[in-house]
Amino acid sequence: MKVLIEGEEEVGSVSLWDYVQKNKEKLKADALVVSDTSMLGKGVPSITYGLRGLNYYQIELTGPERDLHSGVYGGAVPNPLTILTELFAKLHDKNFRVTVPGFYDAVAKVSNAERKALNALPWKKKDFEKAVGAPGYFGEKGFTTVERLWARPTFELNGVWGGYQGEGAKTVIPSKAFAKFSTRLVPNQDPYKIAKLVEKHIRKLLPKTVHCKFEVLSTGKPWVAPYHDPIFKKAQSALEKGFGKKAVFIREGGSIPFVTQMHDTFKVPCVLLGFGLPDENAHAPDEHIALENYFGGIKAIAYFYADLATL
Amino acid sequence: MKVLIEGEEEVGSVSLWDYVQKNKEKLKADALVVSDTSMLGKGVPSITYGLRGLNYYQIELTGPERDLHSGVYGGAVPNPLTILTELFAKLHDKNFRVTVPGFYDAVAKVSNAERKALNALPWKKKDFEKAVGAPGYFGEKGFTTVERLWARPTFELNGVWGGYQGEGAKTVIPSKAFAKFSTRLVPNQDPYKIAKLVEKHIRKLLPKTVHCKFEVLSTGKPWVAPYHDPIFKKAQSALEKGFGKKAVFIREGGSIPFVTQMHDTFKVPCVLLGFGLPDENAHAPDEHIALENYFGGIKAIAYFYADLATL
Repeated sequence: MKVLIEGEEEVGSVSLWDYVQKNKEKLKADALVVSDTSMLGKGVPSITYGLRGLNYYQIELTGPERDLHSGVYGGAVPNPLTILTELFAKLHDKNFRVTVPGFYDAVAKVSNAERKALNALPWKKKDFEKAVGAPGYFGEKGFTTVERLWARPTFELNGVWGGYQGEGAKTVIPSKAFAKFSTRLVPNQDPYKIAKLVEKHIRKLLPKTVHCKFEVLSTGKPWVAPYHDPIFKKAQSALEKGFGKKAVFIREGGSIPFVTQMHDTFKVPCVLLGFGLPDENAHAPDEHIALENYFGGIKAIAYFYADLATL
Repeated sequence: MKVLIEGEEEVGSVSLWDYVQKNKEKLKADALVVSDTSMLGKGVPSITYGLRGLNYYQIELTGPERDLHSGVYGGAVPNPLTILTELFAKLHDKNFRVTVPGFYDAVAKVSNAERKALNALPWKKKDFEKAVGAPGYFGEKGFTTVERLWARPTFELNGVWGGYQGEGAKTVIPSKAFAKFSTRLVPNQDPYKIAKLVEKHIRKLLPKTVHCKFEVLSTGKPWVAPYHDPIFKKAQSALEKGFGKKAVFIREGGSIPFVTQMHDTFKVPCVLLGFGLPDENAHAPDEHIALENYFGGIKAIAYFYADLATL
C-alpha cells in the first residue's frame, strides 16, 4: 500500500503532479483510492464515479492610465468597471447556457439510463435549497438540478473587484477592473481547447477602449469512471458494512485534477470514497465534518482494504 | 468678509450645511465666492458658471446565505456577481444613454448660443486624451466631449467587489456582491426624484434570485449661474490682471452641492474662481497644484476683493 498526502489540491496540485512524474515506477499500483469527495447526504454512503474538470482564469482590464475624478472626466471616458459588467453579462444566454462558441461541442451526452439513475438517487431538492439558503434558484434550461451540478459544464464568476470599496463615497473612474472566474468541465471537454475558446471569445467581446490581460491560472480535465469494474462492487460492499446503510454511485460537481492525471498515467481503476456532507461549509467559514462519517469512514476503508486482497 | 473653510466636500458637506442652517443671519452677504474649481487649461484663467449635481449610491446583492464551493454548487445556484454584471450592463443603451426611465425628462436644453460658446473654448481634445491615457474614448451619442463632461448627466460605476480577490484561485460562489455608483446631474434634474427613479429601475431589473439593499449615500443638485451679472465681469477682469491672460467662462463636470445650497438659501450671485488644472490628479495619487496658478490665484483674488468694493 502506498500513501500520498497533499495539501495543494485547491491550487491545482502542481507539486504533487511533478512528484508523481518523477516517481512513476515507485508509485505503480493496481488501483487508486482517493478520499476527497462527499456523500450524497446524511446516512447515504457514496462512491463518486465522475468529477467535473476545472479551468481557472483571471482578467485585468485597463482603461485610463490612472484613476480619474468621475466629475471631471465622467461621460467621456470608458469606465473599465462598466465594460467588465457588459462583458460578463454577455457570457450566458437567456437559457443560462454559456455563449462561448464551441463550448459545448465536445460534451458527451449522458445516456438515458444514467440520467434516470442519477435523478432516482435519494437526493432531496429541499435539503439542497436549505443548505444554500438563496432567495431563488436557476440553471441551464433542460436539465435537472442534479444534472446541472454533476453532468453539465459551467462558467462562474469567483471574484470581481475595481474602484473604491471602502466606507462612504469616492467619486472615481478606476483605471483597472479585475475578475477571477472558472469553467467547470465535463467529459469530453478538453481544458486547453476550452481555455483558448474562452480567451478568444472574451477578446472578441471587449471593446477597443480597454486593454485586457488574460491569464489561465490552472486547468484540469473532467473524469468519469466505468463503475461496473469489480473494484467498485467491493467499495460498495465495504461502505455498506462500515455504515450499515446502502451505498450509492454518484457524480460530483467539484474537481480533482489529480484523479484524471493519475488515471491517464497509470491506466488503473480510480475509486473515490469520500465522507464529507454537502452542508459542511466546504471552502467557507466553519468548515466541519460529521463525527458519524469520520468513524463510519474509518470502518468502511478498513473493510475495503481487507477485501482488496481478494481481487 | 466672511471666510468659511471645510474639508468634507467629498462626502457631501453634511456638517457645513448644518452650520450654515444654524447661522443664517450671521452669514448673510452680497455674494458668495468659492475656490474649488479648475481652470480650463494651463494659462487659461477660468470662471465656472455651471456644476453637475451628484447622487451617490451603494447596493448589496445577496444570493446564497453563505459563500459556496463553486464545484459542489455551480450550475444550480444564482451567483450574485453574475447578477450584478447583468444589472449594470443594462443601465446604458448602445448610444451610451442611461436607461433609467425618466432620467432625462427634466434635463434643460442647452441653448445653441451656449453650445457654440462652450465648443469654441480653447479646450484641446489632444490634451484631454493625453491626461487620461485611455486606449479609446466614447460617450453619449450626439454630444461633443465638452458637452458630455459639463452639460450631460451620467451614470457611473465607482467601485465593484465580491468573491475572492487575493492571489491565485479560490473556487467560490460568493454570498454577496457590492457596487458603489453615482449619477452626475445637470439642470433641472431633481436629485431626490432621480434617486427614486434609479432605485425603482434597479429593483425592476433584478431577478428574484437575489435580495437587494439599496442605499443613497448622498444627493446634490446641479447648478448653473446667469453669468452676465456684473460681479462675473469683475471676476473676469481680476483674473486677467492676476494672470496676464484672457479669462473664460466654463462649466465643470464635478459637483459642489454646497454652492447650490448656498445659492438657494441666500439668493445671491455665486462666483466660482478656481485654480486647479485638469491633469493634477484630482482624487488620485500624487495630486498637486501648479505653482504659477497658486501665485496667479492669490493675485487675482486680491484684485477681485479690491474691485468688489465698487459694486
